[in-house]
Amino acid sequence: MTQNKSDIPSYPHRDLLGIEGLSPIEISFLLDRSEAFVEHNRQQTSKKLDTLYGRTVVNLFFENSTRTRTSFELAAKRLGADVINMTVESSSIKKGETLIDTAMTLNAMHPDVLVVRHSESGAVKLLSEKVNCAVISGGDGSHEHPTQALLDALTIRRRRGDLAALTVAICGDVVHSRVARSNIHLLNTMGAQVRLIAPKTLLPTKIETMGATVYNNMEEGLKDCDIVMMLRLQKERMQSNFFPSTREYFHFFGLTYEKLANTKPDALIMHPGPMNRGVEIDSEVADDYGRSVIREQVEMGVAVRMACLETMCPIGNDDKGASES
Amino acid sequence: MTQNKSDIPSYPHRDLLGIEGLSPIEISFLLDRSEAFVEHNRQQTSKKLDTLYGRTVVNLFFENSTRTRTSFELAAKRLGADVINMTVESSSIKKGETLIDTAMTLNAMHPDVLVVRHSESGAVKLLSEKVNCAVISGGDGSHEHPTQALLDALTIRRRRGDLAALTVAICGDVVHSRVARSNIHLLNTMGAQVRLIAPKTLLPTKIETMGATVYNNMEEGLKDCDIVMMLRLQKERMQSNFFPSTREYFHFFGLTYEKLANTKPDALIMHPGPMNRGVEIDSEVADDYGRSVIREQVEMGVAVRMACLETMCPIGNDDKGASES
Amino acid sequence: MTQNKSDIPSYPHRDLLGIEGLSPIEISFLLDRSEAFVEHNRQQTSKKLDTLYGRTVVNLFFENSTRTRTSFELAAKRLGADVINMTVESSSIKKGETLIDTAMTLNAMHPDVLVVRHSESGAVKLLSEKVNCAVISGGDGSHEHPTQALLDALTIRRRRGDLAALTVAICGDVVHSRVARSNIHLLNTMGAQVRLIAPKTLLPTKIETMGATVYNNMEEGLKDCDIVMMLRLQKERMQSNFFPSTREYFHFFGLTYEKLANTKPDALIMHPGPMNRGVEIDSEVADDYGRSVIREQVEMGVAVRMACLETMCPIGNDDKGASES
Repeated sequence: MTQNKSDIPSYPHRDLLGIEGLSPIEISFLLDRSEAFVEHNRQQTSKKLDTLYGRTVVNLFFENSTRTRTSFELAAKRLGADVINMTVESSSIKKGETLIDTAMTLNAMHPDVLVVRHSESGAVKLLSEKVNCAVISGGDGSHEHPTQALLDALTIRRRRGDLAALTVAICGDVVHSRVARSNIHLLNTMGAQVRLIAPKTLLPTKIETMGATVYNNMEEGLKDCDIVMMLRLQKERMQSNFFPSTREYFHFFGLTYEKLANTKPDALIMHPGPMNRGVEIDSEVADDYGRSVIREQVEMGVAVRMACLETMCPIGNDDKGASES
Repeated sequence: MTQNKSDIPSYPHRDLLGIEGLSPIEISFLLDRSEAFVEHNRQQTSKKLDTLYGRTVVNLFFENSTRTRTSFELAAKRLGADVINMTVESSSIKKGETLIDTAMTLNAMHPDVLVVRHSESGAVKLLSEKVNCAVISGGDGSHEHPTQALLDALTIRRRRGDLAALTVAICGDVVHSRVARSNIHLLNTMGAQVRLIAPKTLLPTKIETMGATVYNNMEEGLKDCDIVMMLRLQKERMQSNFFPSTREYFHFFGLTYEKLANTKPDALIMHPGPMNRGVEIDSEVADDYGRSVIREQVEMGVAVRMACLETMCPIGNDDKGASES
Repeated sequence: MTQNKSDIPSYPHRDLLGIEGLSPIEISFLLDRSEAFVEHNRQQTSKKLDTLYGRTVVNLFFENSTRTRTSFELAAKRLGADVINMTVESSSIKKGETLIDTAMTLNAMHPDVLVVRHSESGAVKLLSEKVNCAVISGGDGSHEHPTQALLDALTIRRRRGDLAALTVAICGDVVHSRVARSNIHLLNTMGAQVRLIAPKTLLPTKIETMGATVYNNMEEGLKDCDIVMMLRLQKERMQSNFFPSTREYFHFFGLTYEKLANTKPDALIMHPGPMNRGVEIDSEVADDYGRSVIREQVEMGVAVRMACLETMCPIGNDDKGASES
């Protein structure tokens, strides 16, 4: 924590592994910290701060992701930290033991923050238990992707002022989506109404127990909602065929102006990217910057990651991290 | 622009996408700026400046190139900028739309300069139209490779004083070569005589209209020339067979001492690298540092890229970049 | 050399290509320098120094190694240097000539230190002869891995105070191991007794001439030794089958508590990593942090690489590097 944060509500966790379990105050704390960085990042002059000068952030990606890695790298460098990128191909590691060995190896090098992405749910948590530095999840399997949910929330909050009274429809490949899970947790915690719209084959069983209303039809599900969050069709995660063709998928579940007509007139369109244009979203709709905030989401991503890195990175003689591990 | 450049002729473009269209004054401006960095880079003490401190340069390479990427990375870091490398494998992207999405994603992160290399001609320009930061081409398809032509020009100018009265022979795989195109533009603009020497299968149609004399025979083409620029045989770009064998190619078009005897006695030997030794150039000729300036070209590359980054990167309240985009 | 090192014994070599040929005073000099960085790296506050501010360290890896590259990168950044990573896939280079061209290309960019790893023995030395900056080997073929031997020595020295009177058993795949070779040189030079324990198929011929006692049986070889260094089974280097199965290998040469019972009661267990758990070492033994110092080795690695980079990187008007090259 930085020195001048002593009078604001503290964030009491060493790590950020998911949204589940965070309180509304903790989420708001991270969003408020992020807010400050948005304008900072827009100025024409030097955007570099020295908040994390001399600190080392390691991007440990067991699953390739140019966008998320770049966003974290940029965020860390803007705060003055040194960044080390490690992309570990899943083919070159044996699971379980080697993950732990990698964690312990890195830990012995005394980094300040580990940003970890892994293709298996739970792997980031497992790794976090073996190190005594802060760990921020960059997404694990189909479990959680907490910084994505935070950047989505920041985007919505800046446009709508408050999350509480909104109806948010999350549409598409819910079963494979860590983005959906993190957003369901966050939106529920902040008092929004969550709807899930997907074909039955792309919905996990008992998903209603997470606190969402389920629809299998876009027209019904989108009715009067404030926010439409489209999900990327995770073709690479599909073990079998979940629907006959992408053409048919687009017909029933792709976001078009026709289907959009069911939402409130000013409903925002969101997508975590990268988009499959013409599959889950019509290209024109995606580029309709009167309503689509897809570019803003990317921009908020850097601000949110700066806030998370600044919050998690222990400063000076604050030894919270060590005592909790 | 740095503060002390107000009294020198300004470079009026936001981007550097090619040499075509640049005026002699603009080319000389970039070469003059480069000149200052050559000695700077040779000193034994710290070579780091703070001209671009706090700025972010993104190396966005859709085509792998360790040499060019390293040269840009070194140049940016020497100027104090932060560098983020993004290598996007062509296999993982769908062309067209995804290029634009990548551009817009990066743009939303507010970088200061994008250095872009792409395997398709025109892709860098297309991308530049979608962003509001400066874009420097690191080479696109067989279109242009402007910093290569600038570094070649700097190398020649430092050795010969002036480009104007020189005869330059560009030899080899002209049809696939962006290096050739950028050099033809630059040399013509600066008043040099350009010759192209290649087998007919490696020459684009109507290449004479670019302002070059064409030869299909090395002995004739090299006669009395001042500079011999060998091109890399772009085997990876060849869709079909352009000549029977590399052995036969070397016999007719490989640069040997025998063929060199036709040039002026002090003609310089150049190659953009990496070389196919024994294919387009004899190994001994390449290493004859009395005449070969191949190592100098690499050295000039860092200086030229420093000049380009310094020139394109908008500083302080100079909002030229934004107003032009 | 830094200014305040004028009164301590100087390290008289431009490069660190291997341990062979280093004097006890030179090895102790590097270990003493490393020692200072160990505590530095453990502090909670900023670990960044400005010793190498403005210097460029290039990690040139012709063989992939996330661990070693990360350790060097972290070390260089902690000293304030800029780091450029170049991973050159062996498939993309033709041997010999291209190695030299890569060296000359990099040299022309005026880096301060090159850290080089290569899959062929001798390649790093060959490359060092073509450049006029300092070269530190990150391991070459089955020849040497000098920083690994130094970090092993630092780990032992901190635990045992002195290397001189110790008996060290190096066990396993000696024939493919540059770690073994560098350690044999270092331990012999510092006055330790070296034993090699391996099946005959994993021992090079005439290895005794290096100054080591050879055993083909773990129980005998481990008897009363102070240090057990396990080697990674280099499966990727094996051209043919050296033993029937990993299961049989573990039975005869895997380190278990049963075999450990033969050593001195407080013998340290070491492994350069990454471990093949259940092949050359029992998983429980590896994690027995009463005796296993495997994590400490990784930690010492960063300190040793900081010391080597600081020592080899020419500072200010000290032109030793240039005059020797």
